[in-house]
Amino acid sequence: MSKFLIDKYQSLEAYTPGEQPRDMKYVKLNTNESPYPASSGVIKAVSEEEVARLNLYPDPECRALKEKLAEYYGVGYENVFVSNGSDEILSFAFMAFCSEQNGAVFPNISYGFYKVYGDLYNVDYTQAPLNDDFTINVNDYINVNKTVVIANPNAPTGLSLSLDDIERIVSSNPENVVLIDEAYIDFGGKTCLELIKKYDNLLVVRTYSKSRSMAGARLGFAFASKELIDDLNRIKYSTNPYNINRLTLLAGAAAIDDHEYYTECCKKIAETRELAKGRLSQLGFEYLDSDSNFIFARTDRLGGGELYKRLKEQGVLVRHFSDPLISDYVRITVGTPGQMDILFEKTEKILERV
Amino acid sequence: MSKFLIDKYQSLEAYTPGEQPRDMKYVKLNTNESPYPASSGVIKAVSEEEVARLNLYPDPECRALKEKLAEYYGVGYENVFVSNGSDEILSFAFMAFCSEQNGAVFPNISYGFYKVYGDLYNVDYTQAPLNDDFTINVNDYINVNKTVVIANPNAPTGLSLSLDDIERIVSSNPENVVLIDEAYIDFGGKTCLELIKKYDNLLVVRTYSKSRSMAGARLGFAFASKELIDDLNRIKYSTNPYNINRLTLLAGAAAIDDHEYYTECCKKIAETRELAKGRLSQLGFEYLDSDSNFIFARTDRLGGGELYKRLKEQGVLVRHFSDPLISDYVRITVGTPGQMDILFEKTEKILERV
Repeated sequence: MSKFLIDKYQSLEAYTPGEQPRDMKYVKLNTNESPYPASSGVIKAVSEEEVARLNLYPDPECRALKEKLAEYYGVGYENVFVSNGSDEILSFAFMAFCSEQNGAVFPNISYGFYKVYGDLYNVDYTQAPLNDDFTINVNDYINVNKTVVIANPNAPTGLSLSLDDIERIVSSNPENVVLIDEAYIDFGGKTCLELIKKYDNLLVVRTYSKSRSMAGARLGFAFASKELIDDLNRIKYSTNPYNINRLTLLAGAAAIDDHEYYTECCKKIAETRELAKGRLSQLGFEYLDSDSNFIFARTDRLGGGELYKRLKEQGVLVRHFSDPLISDYVRITVGTPGQMDILFEKTEKILERV
Repeated sequence: MSKFLIDKYQSLEAYTPGEQPRDMKYVKLNTNESPYPASSGVIKAVSEEEVARLNLYPDPECRALKEKLAEYYGVGYENVFVSNGSDEILSFAFMAFCSEQNGAVFPNISYGFYKVYGDLYNVDYTQAPLNDDFTINVNDYINVNKTVVIANPNAPTGLSLSLDDIERIVSSNPENVVLIDEAYIDFGGKTCLELIKKYDNLLVVRTYSKSRSMAGARLGFAFASKELIDDLNRIKYSTNPYNINRLTLLAGAAAIDDHEYYTECCKKIAETRELAKGRLSQLGFEYLDSDSNFIFARTDRLGGGELYKRLKEQGVLVRHFSDPLISDYVRITVGTPGQMDILFEKTEKILERV
């Protein structure tokens, strides 16, 4: 830290991303990436001709991509926003709608970045405790007169809220934005996308990082009323108008055309997840009934931190969180069947030695 | 605008980027892009294998690229920061070092985004007037006790400050950050990069968008003391840790390896610029003696807005700013010799009809 940093950021605790080892030696089940590569259409879209053309700025409006998303998801062009990863949308939304005077509420166990944005933008926020079974207590978000931020399915639990519950939350807070972060919705759960046509306060956030195998391309998108999208654009054009590079714009549009491939990948991941649940049971693990591409699991036989450490020694990366409420657990990204075989083989050996 | 947007952003005036037409029908001399394509090494680096691997997150630390930049520019690894375009660095710097209590000063005629960031982050800023000849009045930045932001060469004038003047400014403000935006330094002027070894308050900002033909890839970088770089990282990890996509990271490193190609491109652009100055004189234009890849020019025979409009009708895009102080002028990006021929041919015809 320099002496020049303004006071309010001096105690800021930044987000800690999961490990991204620069070598390829790990079975990487720690940051909820898809184990499947980009589609053939995406590879074709990033052609040599297009790379040569990098000398030109991208379209700051991202029109071609937004048109594609609007058509595929059945919403208006003016209801779509795209960004440099969905974190950027979350950041813009906290900036636009929350402050010291405009509070926010989100679960105490959820995507760790919500709290970081709350601190960064000096937001008067509340972290509503999950129920003992890690489900969200819907009543904590009814009539709260604050911006509501909920991941659905939630992370790192993988548990979903019903569409009815989401609608109750949205309809009970007409004077505040309700942000539903659907990063993992393509693996299970029910999207609330249709509700944007009925409620002007609903912001649905999505990402290409998980179900569309494009974590490395950085592409997020969101759906909402035209006015909410206008607000996000106002922040974008005041911070970084050219926020998405040319190749990612092309890749994002091509991925929509290849939706069958990605749907198939999601189906395989969901099948692998269900098989993994069975194997976790056999190994004596408890786990939450995840709708997402990860499983949150624990065993009485070994603490979460220790399991994480020993798996890493064995070449398998999973995610562990030090928060005492969940430090017993590890979050395991669902990989390919082959990757999961290695995980379970190593886990079994580790537990044998406990 | 929605009713949810918090008060302080309701009057925000966002930055207006230059036109980015989605078709290719214009001779595009309006946003200071390089007219030359990405290098062969960049094209090779963005291989099919790497596109397929987009399912994995990029390295949030951007280690390989920063190592390459540190080596090439002869600074320490800890003195390098990289970002999603240099606008992102400017945004982070205004956020980190400026506020209502921590003022800023920059020229009244400069990159339009400085003012936008000043407004966005509620900064108590001053816009110091340029001299009548559009040079920067150095005394406006000596001992100011504010963050200083200067583009060198300045935009849209193209005029440079000497290294001595920069050092006077940096050394006279030891309690504040001096940000020197060297977006155009590879086309002329003298970099102040070496001064980061002597002054802990100097932040030198660069971009791949101009001299390295990568506006479409979105890649900025900066050099400073370790402590200033730490501050920028703190903001990055609190807003968008994965701010640079995998392909841009690869392209950025490959471009450093291809430095001879880019040096050659810059040399051609500087030569074309000098020839263009001669032709502007022949056509009766006044222009500033630009060190950059654009020329700021005017003629008594036609207003800047009108010239912009008529050139656009003729298929040539240049940039016009409505600020009354410079509305007589157009800013012409230096293109290829062939593009400049078309510009001058069309300009000549337009002036014949005046």
